[in-house]
Amino acid sequence: MSMTSNEASSIITTLANKAKRSMPLLAKAQHEIRNQALCAAARHIRQRKEDILNANNEDVEIAHKADLKESFIDRLTLDTSRIEAMAVSLEEIARLDDPLGKVLAEWERPNGLKISRVATPLGIMGVIYEARPNVTCDAAGLAIKAGNTVILRGGASSIKTATLLAELMRAGLAEVGLPEDAVQLIQDTDRALVGAMLTASGEIDVIIPRGGKSLVERVQNEARVPVFAHLNGICHVYIDADADFDKARAISVNAKMRRVGICGAAETLLVDKNIANDILPLIADDLKKAGCLLRCDAAAKTILDNAHFEGAEDATDTDWSTEYLDQILSVRLVDGVNGAIEHIKNYSSDHTESIITENPATANIFTKVVDSAIVMVNASTQFADGGEFGMGAEIGISTGRMHARGPVGAAQLTSFKYIVRGNGQTRP
Amino acid sequence: MSMTSNEASSIITTLANKAKRSMPLLAKAQHEIRNQALCAAARHIRQRKEDILNANNEDVEIAHKADLKESFIDRLTLDTSRIEAMAVSLEEIARLDDPLGKVLAEWERPNGLKISRVATPLGIMGVIYEARPNVTCDAAGLAIKAGNTVILRGGASSIKTATLLAELMRAGLAEVGLPEDAVQLIQDTDRALVGAMLTASGEIDVIIPRGGKSLVERVQNEARVPVFAHLNGICHVYIDADADFDKARAISVNAKMRRVGICGAAETLLVDKNIANDILPLIADDLKKAGCLLRCDAAAKTILDNAHFEGAEDATDTDWSTEYLDQILSVRLVDGVNGAIEHIKNYSSDHTESIITENPATANIFTKVVDSAIVMVNASTQFADGGEFGMGAEIGISTGRMHARGPVGAAQLTSFKYIVRGNGQTRP
Repeated sequence: MSMTSNEASSIITTLANKAKRSMPLLAKAQHEIRNQALCAAARHIRQRKEDILNANNEDVEIAHKADLKESFIDRLTLDTSRIEAMAVSLEEIARLDDPLGKVLAEWERPNGLKISRVATPLGIMGVIYEARPNVTCDAAGLAIKAGNTVILRGGASSIKTATLLAELMRAGLAEVGLPEDAVQLIQDTDRALVGAMLTASGEIDVIIPRGGKSLVERVQNEARVPVFAHLNGICHVYIDADADFDKARAISVNAKMRRVGICGAAETLLVDKNIANDILPLIADDLKKAGCLLRCDAAAKTILDNAHFEGAEDATDTDWSTEYLDQILSVRLVDGVNGAIEHIKNYSSDHTESIITENPATANIFTKVVDSAIVMVNASTQFADGGEFGMGAEIGISTGRMHARGPVGAAQLTSFKYIVRGNGQTRP
Repeated sequence: MSMTSNEASSIITTLANKAKRSMPLLAKAQHEIRNQALCAAARHIRQRKEDILNANNEDVEIAHKADLKESFIDRLTLDTSRIEAMAVSLEEIARLDDPLGKVLAEWERPNGLKISRVATPLGIMGVIYEARPNVTCDAAGLAIKAGNTVILRGGASSIKTATLLAELMRAGLAEVGLPEDAVQLIQDTDRALVGAMLTASGEIDVIIPRGGKSLVERVQNEARVPVFAHLNGICHVYIDADADFDKARAISVNAKMRRVGICGAAETLLVDKNIANDILPLIADDLKKAGCLLRCDAAAKTILDNAHFEGAEDATDTDWSTEYLDQILSVRLVDGVNGAIEHIKNYSSDHTESIITENPATANIFTKVVDSAIVMVNASTQFADGGEFGMGAEIGISTGRMHARGPVGAAQLTSFKYIVRGNGQTRP
């Protein structure tokens, strides 16, 4: 029997109160202590490798019995190297600069008041995710680094693995004298608890969903707590008339095909109609060789047909707003950079877009007007990643414009306060 | 007959769509053009002074007939100098640095990618306010400065004044070729429209309430759109054992009494019990002379009684969480800085707190651990103000930890994006 929403809310309130009580201790903790907690957790993960594999094995068996998709089971399944990668990731987070206490700006007023804006913890994070066991460690690790507390809600199919991993994160905290309730995993897998998290305004400060479209859509529909999320990544590569053809070819193939299942993979190629005759057949051949299917607008199809390219399909209107996450690319001819900007305005998910051009003025128009979290010039959209940005581990890429945007790492999981130092000033 | 929530939502959707269409033009506009729009609006306000006074007079007459409170009518009433102040405020916003395009951070990756984080408009602001006519101009002015669009919802009692002022702001935009729909005022005063704004997720990016507690509470209860708001300002002054007595006395009186009706006014005085015998009677006399009533905990009352201070009242538990906005101050003795921190943790509204101490170590504990938007050392809490911070006009002081915190001026009404410049990089 599933629980009522009142029951669910009261469970979340209890967890949030525990998290709140542990907040000041974590906020006060020296950087070194927070890092020691991360390294201690990494050590526990290595030491308990066999237990983790056993717990994970139970989850995987249940998933097999429930006939879950192979791709899902693959994401769920741990092996020795994936466990080692989780430990290494925590140690890497420990090596990052302290995001807390950083002076973001400082200035002095004519009356002698010294004002500084200083990074502080954001508060209580709620992370809702599905199968991937590493999210337990990454989310908890980034939370601890930024002085936050976190309430984790893993998927039912990974509950045994997630429970043990959360325990090991808590052991790391306890070992260095930090409150283990800074990391809490919801044990009950009832879906009403997700609803209760999403509506826990004033109890949870931010919700971070990590999962497929149905999860993210539920979050967007129900959340009354602020959310860092992207619904999808419909990323564009635009090949300008002034593009270097070699760069355009290499980037198009890499942006689409390096890994097709990540949110930074390109889904639509826009080509300036003035050079399409020359470059589109070359790129189409490159992509075809790499195993990619092309869905083209009429103008692009005509050019490819004329060039005796075989296999181009007709795109329909829905193609422009489809995140394939597959070896498929939609292709459209546009009228210069303004045509590209117009298409992107209509269809982009505000994630990442790239222009290929040697013309700095055109590049500037593109970077100024395109309002996506990441706007690139002459680079592959697959660089849209916290690690590639040099931020270390990330918990996702935010496409919203509030608070965090782009890769969300430890530094993005902070807030700030103003410190005003005077020597007795009163306001006239 | 009041409108249904569906009717209200459809009106808001129409306004939001107009706002959305004007966004790219405003985001693209040079700083100089945005400033010219502000100065043109200021000029229109001066030229139409008589018309503004007439419109305002109609509002004021209706308010009198409706027997609204004098303080409310005072906030609503314009005169020549208040109108001039609105024009000057717009010109001051025009003189501020451009918040857009500012490079907030930049770095280069080992692979040669140059990454910068650049300030961008936040999007569509929804401002819900009550009587004060200047909010129309300030909110629209800050929005234009930051490249945002704004949907204004003034109170019913100021609708004629607000309508004319919004028209003049729009005329300023039109004069320089910017879309006038970047500033829209809701003409209909039906309260269902407030509800529709609060739930317009995906249409309005942020809600900024400016008004009394009932408005802010409605916003907090109903909003599904992110909100920049403070519910109230329960600000504390803590006098440490190592305080300079002269500073402590001057700051206590100023923090409470300079203006009692603003959110940065102190509401509670905390005194270290080890110096309370020496300093509390002095401060109590100062405050009494200034016209302030004291509500004291038992320990503070005993000290004042022993010092033959007359008129101290007993505080009850509700005093610690009351924003008097009046000539009343609650007083409590605490056990050193940790006692002060504990009290503030329990009762503060996260707005502004100040410690008076000559001991830098104690000051550091206070500024590190107290998690309010503004934490001060040896300065009056009445400095909690965008103008005093050197930020220019502000639209309010945010006590939340998401996105904006503290005084919210033009720079806080921006978001950011990443620009990545490469020379053909593909991701390995």
